[in-house]
Parts: sequence; C-alpha cells; structure tokens
Amino acid sequence: MQIPTFYNIMNNLHHQPAAVRLASRNGDFTLPTAGHAPGFIQANLMIVPQAQAFDFLLFCQRNPKPCPLVEVLAPGQLEPACAPGANIATDVPGYRVYRHGELVEERGEIASLWQPDFVTFLIGCSFSFESAVMQAGVPLRHVEQGRNVAMYRTNLPCVPAGRFQGDMVVSMRPVKSRDIARVVEVSSRFALAHGAPVHVGNPAAIGIGDLSKPDYGDFVPVMPDELPVFWACGVTPQAVAQASRLPLCITHAPGKMFVTDQRG
Amino acid sequence: MQIPTFYNIMNNLHHQPAAVRLASRNGDFTLPTAGHAPGFIQANLMIVPQAQAFDFLLFCQRNPKPCPLVEVLAPGQLEPACAPGANIATDVPGYRVYRHGELVEERGEIASLWQPDFVTFLIGCSFSFESAVMQAGVPLRHVEQGRNVAMYRTNLPCVPAGRFQGDMVVSMRPVKSRDIARVVEVSSRFALAHGAPVHVGNPAAIGIGDLSKPDYGDFVPVMPDELPVFWACGVTPQAVAQASRLPLCITHAPGKMFVTDQRG
Repeated sequence: MQIPTFYNIMNNLHHQPAAVRLASRNGDFTLPTAGHAPGFIQANLMIVPQAQAFDFLLFCQRNPKPCPLVEVLAPGQLEPACAPGANIATDVPGYRVYRHGELVEERGEIASLWQPDFVTFLIGCSFSFESAVMQAGVPLRHVEQGRNVAMYRTNLPCVPAGRFQGDMVVSMRPVKSRDIARVVEVSSRFALAHGAPVHVGNPAAIGIGDLSKPDYGDFVPVMPDELPVFWACGVTPQAVAQASRLPLCITHAPGKMFVTDQRG
Repeated sequence: MQIPTFYNIMNNLHHQPAAVRLASRNGDFTLPTAGHAPGFIQANLMIVPQAQAFDFLLFCQRNPKPCPLVEVLAPGQLEPACAPGANIATDVPGYRVYRHGELVEERGEIASLWQPDFVTFLIGCSFSFESAVMQAGVPLRHVEQGRNVAMYRTNLPCVPAGRFQGDMVVSMRPVKSRDIARVVEVSSRFALAHGAPVHVGNPAAIGIGDLSKPDYGDFVPVMPDELPVFWACGVTPQAVAQASRLPLCITHAPGKMFVTDQRG
C-alpha cells in the first residue's frame, strides 16, 4: 500500500478542478492557476450588476474573439453549470473589486459582498489552445520561461454595446514562420480560448509602437526567424469594463482564473 | 444596348438584398424569401421589449444551435450593422405580432408599433448551409420539390434562461447514408445557419412519433437508402418565446426572412 505523501496530495490538488476550487475556497490555494488542472477550461471572471448585464452580454456577443463566453449565470446564481458544486463567490484564488473604474480591493472571497442582482460572466482564456499548440510540437517561449504572456493595447476597435466600448487588448507569442499556419489551424479549433489569431507580424499596423514594452505581462524576445503572432485577449473585457466606470464590477485577480469541470 | 425588361428588373430584385428589402418596404414584395438574394445570410426576426431582452439574449447564448445570433440590435435601434440603410420595422416582407403568447396580427410593417425599448434579434436560418450542401453535390428533396422543410417538436430540452424554456424544434432532411458524413462536414462550417446536425436517424429517440406528421412545414418521404437527418431549427426561439407568454413579441411571418448584406 502506498501512503499518500504531501507531494501526492499536492499533485492531486493540481490535477483536479474541484480540488483547486475547494482549496481556493478554504484559503489554501492563492496562486495563479496556469498549469493546474491541465485539460480543463479555465475562465476569466467578470461580475456586473444586472442593470449593466444586457449591455455587457451584448458586448461579448459582438466581440466573441476577445470575449468568448464559457457561461453566463442568471442574476444572483452562484453555482455554474460548468462546475457543479462550485461557488463563484469563494472558489477563485483571488478577486479584484472595482468601483467607478477604480481598483479598491483585492480579496480572497466575495461572499460577503454578494448581491442578488450580480450577474457572473465566465470568459474563456488562452490556456486550452496553448496546451494544444505545444502538443502539436510548437514551442511557446513564455511558457518555457515560466513568464506571463506579453499583452498590448491596440488600435483595433471592439464593436461597442451600450456604455461598453474600447480597443482590443492582444496577447503576443513569437512563432517561427514554418509553424505559423499550424498555430492558426490548431488555435482556430478553440473558439472558447479566443480562437485563431487576429494579426500576424507588423505590430505597428495595429498600433503597437514598441514590442519590448508590453502594457501587461512580460516581454519575450522575437527571434529573427520568428514573427510576432497576436491573439485577442481576455484582458479586453476587463479593460473595457473598467473604462466604462461601472458603479461596481468584480473580476478575478490577474492569472487567478476560475477552473471549470469542462474539458477544452 | 439591351433594354431592361420586367424580367430583368425582377431578376435583379431577386438577387440583391437591398432591392428585396426596399421592395418589402414599399409593399411590392410580400413573398417568402427562400431563393432570393442567393449567397446572402437571411435571418429569423425576433423583437422583444428590453425588460425581457437580457433573458432572451442569455437563452440564445446558451442554445447556439437553434438560436445562432447573426446580430442583436441596441434597444430602439432600427438599422442593423449587417444591412446598412435597412429599417428593421419595414424591410421584412411580413411580420407577426404576439401578445401574451397569442398571435393577434399579421402585417406588412411594424413602424407604427415601434417603441424605443424594442430589442431586435436576428437569428440565422438554414438557407446558407442548404445552398452549400447542394453545391457539394448532395440533393435536398424539399428544395427540389419546392416545399417547406419538415419541422418537428422534440424532447431535446433547451438550456433555460429566466422565463425562456422549452424543447428544441428540429428540421428534417432525408440524406443517403453515403452522403451523411459530407452533409455533417459541410453544415458544421455554417455556425450561423444552425451548424452540424443534432441527430441522425432514429426519430423516436428524440421524441418524434410519426415522421409523416411534421408539426410545421411539409412532409417529404424518407427513402429506404436514406436516413432522416435532424438540425436545430430557428422555429425554436419563436416557440419558446410564445410559450413564455411575453406581453409582446414580434417575429417575421413564416418564410419571410430579413435579408442581410452579409455573405454566408
């Protein structure tokens, strides 16, 4: 009989969505979720009051590449269909609370702030397609180097909806010319993970002045035999919601996603 | 120089979305739109008051196969982005007005009923994938026979959203066994036209008792070397909206779609 070791328990924790969520609920897991529960869809969190929910849902519907909807919960609903037994107000490793567009608080739960008119949006992130790209034999430098992906504001306008408007934020991954068609093919199958790229090469054409200075995340160099490839990024809806100065909106803390039971 | 004939003018009318819409606006076109403006996306129309719009948008988001969203207009907006210059209140060949779930009126325009809180949903229809299937060499009997497609209520539940709930309505097309994989491949590329089938063969398994008695449209026989293939149908959101007994909802009249400028 094998005695469970701390390593085995942690290993198990890392591999099961429900375990990551439970540990987050208990305050035992406060890390970024990248690499945990591999093979399961992780989601950006966005909570807005019902008064703004139609416009925000319309914004997501009109901008499916930056805002792929994994699930939208009914007003006040805490348990998502994509994660039975979960509680959206406690099971994310970290939350950020914004009032009138300003970050006022980062906290481990929002149960004490919860209101019956809160509408939760779970928006896909890039982890699923990154795994698939690497499994297809294409290396991704920021993953190899253990860095956050580089993200940039662009001049690509989102389609506005009500008070929600703004330009798209993109993530950038350097890809060798011979691999570009393959990463397009592979990523395009993952519509819930932002799908195919929005731009290949020529950063200036989408308003990026200096690749070495990302607006979010960490810069990784682009080698001479590579081109920068840009995907729509889940930071877009957060940036747009903040810019619209909602009375209240709640998001996950950077990198600390909601882990679903849905395979992606 | 060729003098334009009535036939040429009518031919032109049939082939241009804007011409179909303008003739509808002027009362000169009151026909079903199948076969007109080929190559352009046609849409089911659903208009609900803003008070119900979030729930209905959520219903569509949760049920993308029966309710593929071509466009959702802002409250009160009359001109869709998918058809610049169009007027949603006049440019459909026929409208139906439902109050508390009952059909009260069929009319040629709704401009005189229009309210600033009306939210318009344009929901994809099957015409785009039918053209592509036939271009791929697979015949479709109801088109050849000039009949309406056969549609059936099923026991496949839609994912509910607020007051909107109900079972899926499907359309049925007989397809030879050798062609079934091809129609799946081709139709799956047309997400805005209901995408891939939801069921192949065995009608009883989805609650259809008698194929020869469709709930809507016309029966076409299924030959011994064929299987009935079922697609999610745009009648679903209409049936669900009627069953929810909204104070008011407005749809297109059967077969009289809104013709967009979007190629599909």
